[in-house]
Parts: sequence; C-alpha cells; structure tokens
Amino acid sequence: MNIVLLGSGNVATHLAKALNAKGEQVLQVYSQNLLNAKLLAKQLNAEAIDNLAQVDQTADLYIISVKDDAIEHVATSLKNVNGLVVHTSGTTDISILSSHVKNGGVFYPLQTFSKIKALSFDDVPLCIEANDDNQLQILKDLANKLSDQVYELDGAKRKVLHLAAVFACNFPNHLFAMAHKILEENNLDFNIIRPLIAETADKVMDNLPESVQTGPAVRNDENTMNKHLEMLENKPDMQNIYKTISSSIKLMSK
Amino acid sequence: MNIVLLGSGNVATHLAKALNAKGEQVLQVYSQNLLNAKLLAKQLNAEAIDNLAQVDQTADLYIISVKDDAIEHVATSLKNVNGLVVHTSGTTDISILSSHVKNGGVFYPLQTFSKIKALSFDDVPLCIEANDDNQLQILKDLANKLSDQVYELDGAKRKVLHLAAVFACNFPNHLFAMAHKILEENNLDFNIIRPLIAETADKVMDNLPESVQTGPAVRNDENTMNKHLEMLENKPDMQNIYKTISSSIKLMSK
Repeated sequence: MNIVLLGSGNVATHLAKALNAKGEQVLQVYSQNLLNAKLLAKQLNAEAIDNLAQVDQTADLYIISVKDDAIEHVATSLKNVNGLVVHTSGTTDISILSSHVKNGGVFYPLQTFSKIKALSFDDVPLCIEANDDNQLQILKDLANKLSDQVYELDGAKRKVLHLAAVFACNFPNHLFAMAHKILEENNLDFNIIRPLIAETADKVMDNLPESVQTGPAVRNDENTMNKHLEMLENKPDMQNIYKTISSSIKLMSK
Repeated sequence: MNIVLLGSGNVATHLAKALNAKGEQVLQVYSQNLLNAKLLAKQLNAEAIDNLAQVDQTADLYIISVKDDAIEHVATSLKNVNGLVVHTSGTTDISILSSHVKNGGVFYPLQTFSKIKALSFDDVPLCIEANDDNQLQILKDLANKLSDQVYELDGAKRKVLHLAAVFACNFPNHLFAMAHKILEENNLDFNIIRPLIAETADKVMDNLPESVQTGPAVRNDENTMNKHLEMLENKPDMQNIYKTISSSIKLMSK
C-alpha cells in the first residue's frame, strides 16, 4: 500500500515505523513544521512536506494523525483523493471525515506512545471503523498485519475506550510522577520504587484491579491516611489528590 | 534461622514463603484467626497458634506482620524473648518495639502483595532498620538472601517511601479499577486495555514519568477533557477524580 502520513507526532511516528517495518510504503510525511516532517520522513525513505497542496493525490491510504482540532482542516485538503482517509483519534467521530472526503475511516491504536520509547506493535489493540464493508476489510487487513488485537468499534465505544485509557494510563503516569517528586525531595532514588510499579501493572494482567487493591484506604486505616496527609501539609495539590482517590477507594470497597 | 511469624496477611504470607524457600525455618504462625494461621502454617510445616501466650520464646527472629495498630499489642507479648523482633510496616516507627522488646528492628518489603498472585522476591526492595550494628548485620544478611535490593533506611525515609508507594501503586490500581468499571458498563472487555497498562508501567522503567506523560491534560486539550467530563455526568466520584488529576497534570507541566 502507498501511504501518505499527515502528522509527525507520537502516534504518527510509531504507526509509520510499524507500517514501514511491515513493508508498506510511506510516500510522504506532512507536518506544519518541515523539520519534524523531515526527521520522520528520513527514517521511512519518504518525502517531507509542509504544505497540504503538495499532498500526493494518488495514494491508497491517507493517515491523519494530528491534534484532534486540526483533523478537519487537514481533511478538507483531501476532498479529491480516491484513496481511503483515516484519522487516528480516540475521541473524534468518523463523520468529521465523511463530510469532506469520499472514503473516511478510523484507525485508532489504543496505546501510549512517546518518541523516546520503542515498542512492539504486535499487542497494540487497533480499533477500526469504516463506512462500508469494503473499506472496513481494507483496514482490517492492514490492522491484522500490524497487530494481533484488532477490534471493530463504532465511535461511541471508541470514545468510551479513550476515556478508560485516560484512567488506565495518563492518570497513573501522573501519579508515578508525584511519587518521583516525593522521593526526589527526600533524596531517594526513583529506582527504589520501580519494582513496585512493575508489579502493580503485572498484577492486573491476570486479575481484575478491584480484587487486588491494597493500601491504607482499602483497609480503612485512618491513622496512616492522616499521617500521610500531614506529610503533604505544604503540598495542597498532592493532598487534594490523596483525599480524592482515598475517598473513592473507600466508596468502591464498601 | 528459627523464625516465629506473627500475622497471616498478604505481607506475612509472601515473606514467610520466600524465607521458607531460602531454607529458613518458620516454627510458628500466629493469627487471631486460627484457620488463617493454619492455612499458612501448613505450607511452611509450621505450627499454627492463635494465642500469644503460646509463642515459642527461643526463636532467633520474630516477624510481626499485622495491622499497624496491632503491632504494639503483639510486641508486648515478646518482652522476654532474646531473639530479634522486627515489624514489616512502612509507617510505624522502630521505637514502638524498642519500648517493649530487647532487640527491635524493621524489615519492610516495598511491594504490593496479594495472596492470589505469586511473585519473585529477588527484586523486592527490602528496607531494614535496627538499633545497633550487630542486629543490622543480621537483618542485612537475611535480606540479602531474599533480594538483590536491600536498603538501610531510617523511619523518616521509610515513611516517605510508603507515602510514595501509595501514589505509585495503590492509587494507580484504583484508577485501573475505574477504567474497568467504565469498560464494563459499555460491554467492553478489560483485556482490551491491559496492553496499555503494561506499557504505561514499562515506559517508566527506563524513563522518568514526567518525561513520558501523554493524554489530553498535558496537551491542554480542553475540548477532549470537556467531552470526557460530559461522559461522566452521572458519576460524580469519577468526575471529581478526573478534574483533580487533570488540574494537577496541567500544573506540573507548566
């Protein structure tokens, strides 16, 4: 397949590299910032462009992987292409494309991507959606090449998944950052807590999280919770998080 | 070493099995609930007791692994023993023992333990504290048998570590439980999000969490955050958590 990639962020980068590794040909990488486009295009033997008017009109697939609020603008520049146009957003409806392009779809990888961390695409859940069966089949075939976990999901389900992902990934990562801050201020290395983080995730690979909840809140250990809140006396932000989540744990374990 | 284990909870169970596997002899398991004591004692070829007056007075080591507020009561029953008496609590001072027993110490494993999940003790950070060098050496030798990560930490640092662990483990696990709830209510399987959870933890094994933060809050994507809050309209508890953590992410990324 000949592919044009519109975007050069975390998702675009990981997806393009995975496609490239499976023998798909990325023709062009578009970014508003030509330097970013070039950085990625170089790794894919693709052309870097920073002007939507330069987009190759003959590709089989156009992947729009830009900020949600820029998807529509990018889509308007693809109104004449015959290839399939997909976006990679968890929260954006397929209809944002349908009103601008002939063949619109969704190709949403449910994973956290950072440019500095490589990962295998094999077990990245890929959520696909299309407007007709032929297009769905094209996306399904492509998705199956990349990953063992391919899901057909409509926009409503995809949005639910994206919301769940914020709770399962973005928020926990921020709590790891708070743990790091607490340790750092007391000259303790983040390394000491890494095995705990690894095990916390590993535990829910075979169990449901609510069945392996530990800590003072689920034990209703008010004494320890009060001591912790005292230690956070000068950190209203952390104290607030501590109270909010502890209350929620108590609520759920009732 | 001949060991008496006072407690039969998650920490007691994992620690006793690890000691047993390294050839240490657990003589007795005490629990207020004789059935619990028996369940664990059977696996260790130890005697199960439910009365502190039955505790063998001649052991080398007494490990008190009970709820924090029960440690002192258990310690008072060990005032005549010559062996070393340690507790396994992250938040409790060593002095709670010193006033009751001859030789008090701390043996705190920084990990999340659930009876239903086995784990290797090799990389469980063990935090030890003692009142004199001889006792510290005994604990260090024992800890080194069990784990490659042994830290000498005073009570103040141990309490910091315990607080950080709540942020790095207990709170994230609760957020996983919320993600599960969101998925379940929409007939989506928890399996779909497990690779994301695994990668979220894996990312911070070699990176610091603040450098790999992703999601709408760190992008300041108000549109997505507002949509998410709408989806949580009838869930004040989750909405509250969503707002609190998102604000904190924005604050930290400023």
